[in-house]
Amino acid sequence: MNAAADSPAPTFADIEAAARRLRGVAVETPLLSFPELDRRTGARVLVKPETLQRTGSFKFRGAYAKLSTLSPEARRRGVVAFSSGNHAQGVAAAAQLLGIPATIAMPSDAPAMKLRNTRGYGAQVRSYDRRRDDRQALAEALLEETGGTLVRPYDDRKVTAGQGTCGLEIARQARDAGVRLDDALFCCGGGGLTAGAATALAELSPGTAVYTVEPEGFDDTARSLAAGHRLGNAPDAHSICDALLSPMPGDLTFPVLQRYRVQGLAVSDGEVREAMVFAYAWMKLVVEPGGAVTLAALLSGKLDVRGRTVAIVLSGGNVDAETFCAAVCTA
Amino acid sequence: MNAAADSPAPTFADIEAAARRLRGVAVETPLLSFPELDRRTGARVLVKPETLQRTGSFKFRGAYAKLSTLSPEARRRGVVAFSSGNHAQGVAAAAQLLGIPATIAMPSDAPAMKLRNTRGYGAQVRSYDRRRDDRQALAEALLEETGGTLVRPYDDRKVTAGQGTCGLEIARQARDAGVRLDDALFCCGGGGLTAGAATALAELSPGTAVYTVEPEGFDDTARSLAAGHRLGNAPDAHSICDALLSPMPGDLTFPVLQRYRVQGLAVSDGEVREAMVFAYAWMKLVVEPGGAVTLAALLSGKLDVRGRTVAIVLSGGNVDAETFCAAVCTA
Repeated sequence: MNAAADSPAPTFADIEAAARRLRGVAVETPLLSFPELDRRTGARVLVKPETLQRTGSFKFRGAYAKLSTLSPEARRRGVVAFSSGNHAQGVAAAAQLLGIPATIAMPSDAPAMKLRNTRGYGAQVRSYDRRRDDRQALAEALLEETGGTLVRPYDDRKVTAGQGTCGLEIARQARDAGVRLDDALFCCGGGGLTAGAATALAELSPGTAVYTVEPEGFDDTARSLAAGHRLGNAPDAHSICDALLSPMPGDLTFPVLQRYRVQGLAVSDGEVREAMVFAYAWMKLVVEPGGAVTLAALLSGKLDVRGRTVAIVLSGGNVDAETFCAAVCTA
Repeated sequence: MNAAADSPAPTFADIEAAARRLRGVAVETPLLSFPELDRRTGARVLVKPETLQRTGSFKFRGAYAKLSTLSPEARRRGVVAFSSGNHAQGVAAAAQLLGIPATIAMPSDAPAMKLRNTRGYGAQVRSYDRRRDDRQALAEALLEETGGTLVRPYDDRKVTAGQGTCGLEIARQARDAGVRLDDALFCCGGGGLTAGAATALAELSPGTAVYTVEPEGFDDTARSLAAGHRLGNAPDAHSICDALLSPMPGDLTFPVLQRYRVQGLAVSDGEVREAMVFAYAWMKLVVEPGGAVTLAALLSGKLDVRGRTVAIVLSGGNVDAETFCAAVCTA
């Protein structure tokens, strides 16, 4: 057994294996250019719209990569997950495709579209109160009740390997287009997408600088990376980015981000709304608040990208029409 | 001089030449799959989102293909166009890229986004009243005043060749994906996109059946194709599809549609709104009313596509936020 196999973090080979399992199931999202975005930023920006991914976010990649490796016995017992919505939909859709029962606990204030779709993919949804209920106790009760396998949203080697296929595709698509990437920006909750993608980029595009982007108030990863150890967020923090409200960097993910010298950026809710409006008006893409943070970072000048070639992921598009229209109609 | 060069209709070679001129300027839009769309229709649907095209619609292809062939002297004199908005933006953006002055007459009730963007690309916009003003007289006055070249939206060989590059890409992308296309659906105003695309498909994918989709009340092409000669629309017809309100099939385009045995479909405003909502919820794409007619035709069952492989073009995404949100928020 080699060292890599002992590590909880995904290796490049893990990501390649996940990509093979996802072939023909996940959408290979394109890498798009938008002249107006290049004009505004002074950069060449390549946009990876994971909004077009199955279930409307990159989370499907990690969920299917994990579930497709479960044994027949584990599949029969089913899976359990906790999520405000994108991981929930990813797990539910992957479970449906594989014929696995899924029980998913979601906060009662999750966006209606995320709740509806998770049920639509056939999962049993258990609602809990984000403030009152003890999530840990609920998890233990659900696991005991169902006998199922817990599918963590980021602190899981196979899940992060699956999420990393997004970075693998970026590196290969950029190479096929004859482009050298200077920077790559990823949204960050627990850090699974960035950890997986940074692992892929380190192998295929080692000169690319990797950045996380978080909402202000939930910039635990940015502060942790700067401090050199994991820090949490203030308990009263608030953001419209419902997908990115993780309490602190992951056990598995944080050392990976450190290893690849990832740096952290943060954006305000106002900057996120402006990015959603820009995506509506100039990219014709529906992007949810948490999915728009990388675009918000570029448009608000959080990073000097003039003259550089930059890849960004728009990580999800599952936003209730009322929330979306409140942003784009008042602009 | 060969026969093809005498014909006002574009040849396959014209479309290939236009594609070469558009390389690196127009966006090669992807051909996307959406599992929920396949599930709803029972077909394998390949979606070409020209919403992601430069200026937010396929019209840029035709405009740039035309303007890039003008002589230095004609470029100096400038170009003139009439358009409710997508051709206007296409011509304005192409003219800006090529350093050509553009004067564009637009109806005063065109969507605000289309008016704003056309001006944003540097064109002089002249507003006219769709009902009161004599468009022909206005055209002659503008041409005399500016000495410019009139860029017609569809009855022009080079414009339709440029628009046909959309069909060329569909045929090549489907072939690269190992897919045989049974059907291809295009929105239809004057018929330029369909005429160009049908010409490309006849060469590269001759077994593919081609359909136009129009708004009810503006289904002049469907009725003309059925009758075997050109027919107009009732003068009091009304539709939310502002991009598709052409009075009758084009001189150039109609014989091309007949030659390739194109058939015509029509959809109601309600079906268009439902398609816009579907695109929002399941495809995360912003599609304008006229851009959603092909999707509307599939979702409302205008064509039995079960078990078939079908390409559709989402032709544009330039829709005012108020109009968009009125459709998606009341669904």
